[in-house]
Amino acid sequence: MLEHIRIVMVGTTHPGNIGAAARAMNTMGLSDLRLVAPLHYPHAEASSRASGSAHILMQAQVSDSLDEALADATLVVGTSARQRRIPWPCLSPRQLGARVAEGSGSEKIAILFGREDRGLTNDELHRCHYHVAIPTNPDYGVLNVAAAVQLLSYELRLALLGDAEGDLAPLRDSAHRMPLPELEWDSPRAGAAEVEQFIGHFERAISAAGFIDPAAPGHVMTRMRRLFQRAHPDQVEINILRGILTQFEQHLPPPAPQD
Amino acid sequence: MLEHIRIVMVGTTHPGNIGAAARAMNTMGLSDLRLVAPLHYPHAEASSRASGSAHILMQAQVSDSLDEALADATLVVGTSARQRRIPWPCLSPRQLGARVAEGSGSEKIAILFGREDRGLTNDELHRCHYHVAIPTNPDYGVLNVAAAVQLLSYELRLALLGDAEGDLAPLRDSAHRMPLPELEWDSPRAGAAEVEQFIGHFERAISAAGFIDPAAPGHVMTRMRRLFQRAHPDQVEINILRGILTQFEQHLPPPAPQD
Repeated sequence: MLEHIRIVMVGTTHPGNIGAAARAMNTMGLSDLRLVAPLHYPHAEASSRASGSAHILMQAQVSDSLDEALADATLVVGTSARQRRIPWPCLSPRQLGARVAEGSGSEKIAILFGREDRGLTNDELHRCHYHVAIPTNPDYGVLNVAAAVQLLSYELRLALLGDAEGDLAPLRDSAHRMPLPELEWDSPRAGAAEVEQFIGHFERAISAAGFIDPAAPGHVMTRMRRLFQRAHPDQVEINILRGILTQFEQHLPPPAPQD
Repeated sequence: MLEHIRIVMVGTTHPGNIGAAARAMNTMGLSDLRLVAPLHYPHAEASSRASGSAHILMQAQVSDSLDEALADATLVVGTSARQRRIPWPCLSPRQLGARVAEGSGSEKIAILFGREDRGLTNDELHRCHYHVAIPTNPDYGVLNVAAAVQLLSYELRLALLGDAEGDLAPLRDSAHRMPLPELEWDSPRAGAAEVEQFIGHFERAISAAGFIDPAAPGHVMTRMRRLFQRAHPDQVEINILRGILTQFEQHLPPPAPQD
């Protein structure tokens, strides 16, 4: 039930936090951990803080790039302490639980946690369908990254499995559910890599057409990325969109060499 | 609103956990920490893990006995991983939040967290009005003590204050409606007429480019309409999309006369 949830730690500085996050995941029944460019890893401090959860560290894949860690993800969620300039669809941790419970089984969900000192970059946040902000003290909102993993894992466990004692079962009743168009869809959802390839293609095509200056794309690509992420395209839709771009490109002057 | 909640750490072994608990409390707006017979305290590791929450450690009273830490408490709650031999009134963390919210202001609430290796003793648990068990993986229920402080502080904050942004308030209402992510968006949503005009423009442009035969568009336009409707575009997005179409059209052969 929780196997389709992946915790992705990006650029983690302190190896102890990686171990503590593995332990936090384990207490809530999560086990799929990916590490993107950790500063110090493997490390004795990670193993020590993992306590009885060394198997999660052992299985954790380390990637150089976020793309690799997200390739098969169909729903990407980024944790963020503050609202960014361009608003993004945003969920509370509890709303994330409800959203994930809706699509369970049919989605591969990646939840991104950023660097201890500065979180996720704007580019990384723009890869996400949703941002999640943990409600905090307005005077001190700096959760430890493993504590944030603990809280979200807890909310996901409750949303997906309920409480063992059954007293949270009402939260899973129909009244609390947000209807999702993605249920019983006619085509599989596109994975993050397919969507990225489409967005790259889109940017090249509108640059070649002269709509944006590739050296100074401004907010156009950010807004278009937000739009397409929000729509959660399926594979057929991505194929159609790419076919349309290719068709337009045939009418454009020959492109300058790509670098 | 949260001043009447005290976190009591009993017999804590690792000073780092005391610092991490202070930080966890601070992120959720709690500040009253008591330490009963900590093994090593004060300690550099406690200060280091407290991060920006040193003032909570500075104010934390250290007691030799639990009695001293509980003297003025009117409601005492003990955290416990497992059911003890003699059943006790037991709450989930969320139920604790609801219970504390009921009596807010009129009670002094102490929440006890036990030793890293063996929790609270039976005698200590018998001092409590309620026991709280955090729902965990049945195969690995060993939360770090600071992580447990983080989770309970979070549930108490939500129960007493809701989310600062107000987006959790609906979750406490009967309907549990999901607020739309588009709330507080940076641009007004496009109206149906604008979306229709865009879709008409889209169809003309991809026909002119030769991607569909306007006499037999097949399912392409149905799928593209479904995609764009689902995304609920805002007015800026629609304007960008139409600008892109216009730019592509300038590279196409002159259109056949529209009818």
